[in-house]
Amino acid sequence: MSLDAVLSKLDADLDQAVTRLQEFLRIPSISTDPAYKSDVADAARWLVQDLSSIGVTATAHQTPGHPMVVGHGGDSGRSLLFYGHYDVQPIDPLELWDRDPFDPVVEDGPNGKVIRGRGTADDKGQLMTFVEACRAWKAVHGTLPARQTFLFEGEEESGSPSLVPFLEQNRDLLSADLGLICDTGLYDPQTPAITTMLRGLLGEEVTIEGPSKDLHSGAFGGPAMNPIRVLAKVLAGLHDAQGRVTVPGFYDDVEEISDEVARQWDALDFDAESFLGAVGLSHPAGEADRSALQQIWARPTCEVNGIKGGYAGAGFKTVLPSRASAKISFRLVAAQDPLKIREAFRAMVRDAMPPDCTVSFHDHGAAPASRMDISDPAFEAARQALSAEWPKPAAYVGAGGSIPVAGHMQKILGIDSMLIGFGRSDDQIHSPNEKYDMDSFHRGMRSWARILAAIA
Amino acid sequence: MSLDAVLSKLDADLDQAVTRLQEFLRIPSISTDPAYKSDVADAARWLVQDLSSIGVTATAHQTPGHPMVVGHGGDSGRSLLFYGHYDVQPIDPLELWDRDPFDPVVEDGPNGKVIRGRGTADDKGQLMTFVEACRAWKAVHGTLPARQTFLFEGEEESGSPSLVPFLEQNRDLLSADLGLICDTGLYDPQTPAITTMLRGLLGEEVTIEGPSKDLHSGAFGGPAMNPIRVLAKVLAGLHDAQGRVTVPGFYDDVEEISDEVARQWDALDFDAESFLGAVGLSHPAGEADRSALQQIWARPTCEVNGIKGGYAGAGFKTVLPSRASAKISFRLVAAQDPLKIREAFRAMVRDAMPPDCTVSFHDHGAAPASRMDISDPAFEAARQALSAEWPKPAAYVGAGGSIPVAGHMQKILGIDSMLIGFGRSDDQIHSPNEKYDMDSFHRGMRSWARILAAIA
Repeated sequence: MSLDAVLSKLDADLDQAVTRLQEFLRIPSISTDPAYKSDVADAARWLVQDLSSIGVTATAHQTPGHPMVVGHGGDSGRSLLFYGHYDVQPIDPLELWDRDPFDPVVEDGPNGKVIRGRGTADDKGQLMTFVEACRAWKAVHGTLPARQTFLFEGEEESGSPSLVPFLEQNRDLLSADLGLICDTGLYDPQTPAITTMLRGLLGEEVTIEGPSKDLHSGAFGGPAMNPIRVLAKVLAGLHDAQGRVTVPGFYDDVEEISDEVARQWDALDFDAESFLGAVGLSHPAGEADRSALQQIWARPTCEVNGIKGGYAGAGFKTVLPSRASAKISFRLVAAQDPLKIREAFRAMVRDAMPPDCTVSFHDHGAAPASRMDISDPAFEAARQALSAEWPKPAAYVGAGGSIPVAGHMQKILGIDSMLIGFGRSDDQIHSPNEKYDMDSFHRGMRSWARILAAIA
Repeated sequence: MSLDAVLSKLDADLDQAVTRLQEFLRIPSISTDPAYKSDVADAARWLVQDLSSIGVTATAHQTPGHPMVVGHGGDSGRSLLFYGHYDVQPIDPLELWDRDPFDPVVEDGPNGKVIRGRGTADDKGQLMTFVEACRAWKAVHGTLPARQTFLFEGEEESGSPSLVPFLEQNRDLLSADLGLICDTGLYDPQTPAITTMLRGLLGEEVTIEGPSKDLHSGAFGGPAMNPIRVLAKVLAGLHDAQGRVTVPGFYDDVEEISDEVARQWDALDFDAESFLGAVGLSHPAGEADRSALQQIWARPTCEVNGIKGGYAGAGFKTVLPSRASAKISFRLVAAQDPLKIREAFRAMVRDAMPPDCTVSFHDHGAAPASRMDISDPAFEAARQALSAEWPKPAAYVGAGGSIPVAGHMQKILGIDSMLIGFGRSDDQIHSPNEKYDMDSFHRGMRSWARILAAIA
């Protein structure tokens, strides 16, 4: 039978697939840092070549930022658009890595072999599970199982500034019936998941300026306004005592999950204690009246992702700084409008400025939350295909992280997406020592072969 | 007359004095940054050699930190202890300097010639005014005017960790009747000043830790505690709506200035508008019911000097950080006890920690405020000597900045000090493009010659 031959081919060629992934991971494609611009372009070129090697016609399309890689292959069957991203997060603090983040190796971990390095789980290792499934299919059958478009983005970790214009300008190039996105995780190591609810993301950078230059805190401390103090007050005011976000109108478009969804989630038997315990925490810190799982999957949040101001190096400097800044992100749910929330947030911060302080904002992207329509029979077919590969049946779940492309594909291309990925909660994505389990990589590619066989 | 010969010698040798100062300034003696440790030692050696060249027996005494340079010269007259510091502030942000901070040049400024570079005004240029006065006196008279001890510190810009133990262990070596300290400013470009009230300084670094590692703000945002949020709340709570510091007991030992001092200060006709206007500000931001001059000279403050946490580089990283920290300084007045305030501050911060957050503190020094007893006739003699050199009569003033050594010399060596310096409000000390006016340098050395003649 044809699927079995493809699965056998994937098993037989696993070592070569790992070697290809390592080559891809060695390219330090950090999109948010301009110093790595040419490396991001190298990673795009690598993908174009790799797609070409399996008969996919691929091009790295230039954008004002990093390239979009688009490929087409297959000539019959359902029209599918697969999305992954080839850029990665920064690597600081570098001193917390046990080895070079861009020299990935396969190591023994406590739960089996893992490949360790930046981008292994987010998202190079994941996107390659799909490419490897296609490669094996092509080797066995001489063609791909469906009419497939591949879209690989190089700006996912830096707010995707080029994504919306690119989708808008290339509707025909990217037209498809259904999206496939591989940038999410398993529910647990035995239970695969199809993510059907995704939080949106609004990224803002706030810079407050006071004195025209850094001052001596002795000579000016007292009468001179300190921008760090003003910034601290703004940030401290973003949540109330119950952990709710105070931006006016923030909860206006938030909807409660249905009783049916609530029942499904209860059945997952989520263990908040061990989820938090794994990262040294014990108390859910979000909205006081919500479970930890609801806080992540179904409730919006506001977090400060970075702050700087004054002298923060070794020793002490009695400076009264001229400016202070913070990076702030909002995770959004349901029908929350990122642009409306951005305006409400900015107005709130502007209103908080005392005399002699000015505030400026830098936009780091805005994407609404999205929910998929699972009445398309492909969803249930994929869920059963996944269930055949893994120890436990696949579940429909929510996701705390943002995969903004899912919403953009709904809005601009008019298609829902199946979000299927094989990451695990201990993958340390965005942190030092990121890894991807070899079991995820291997079963992941087998899962895609099964899914393609089921829905193509 | 002997003083006139010394003044003439200072005038004649001014160019050589500038060349010596430039050589001294080229040594990047940044004490707070361990990377410059050997440069600080080089600056100490330079001073030992320069003192030797004027017949002063000098030694660089090792400490657990940077060296203390101590020299002795002169064999009759009043016993004086002169203090200056040869370390300098860090130079960041380097991009705001118009030229290399350690390649000082004499330039034309809007108000005459200046020498520009790190340490020109704080404090290398100032301490050299005294050394040059002694050099000229020695050249003219073959000896120094008084029994003089020189004490040059290399840790003033990094909290003076070795100063107190060194004073305590070397009481005999440093014994004197009166201290002279050159690390303050003119009242205005025409009016010299003797500073008789100095604010103390307490430096604290607060580090708040939450999750055991940096987290993805999508996967954990909501239930995971964010240390930046906790730090912001702590900092925002340090002042009340009237600008008063909220640390319990903070104002217990603060005394009001006397009516007589208040009258003297009113007579100075301090122009708050132009003082703040020079740094781009217009509203005194301190305690609502105090004048700007009182806020600086007579009232205690709390300032955040630096803050960091999470990702603050280019672009955006949706990290939920494991830690955040801030450097905080308190300026103290009157009888405020720095150790009592440190404990009250730390207790207040500890009490503010939510579950899952721990706080640690790093001590960056503590020195009480000090006030000098101006009934010693040397003060009035010095005030008249200064008045003879400058366009306007000298004034007794307060100082917002801390010169902790003045308090330590009172407490440990039992002597009051005359704080006389020639800095100006536009010197940009602790900031990019620091400078020292040639008029300050030249009249400064002439002033010391006059003062030594008057009090020796």
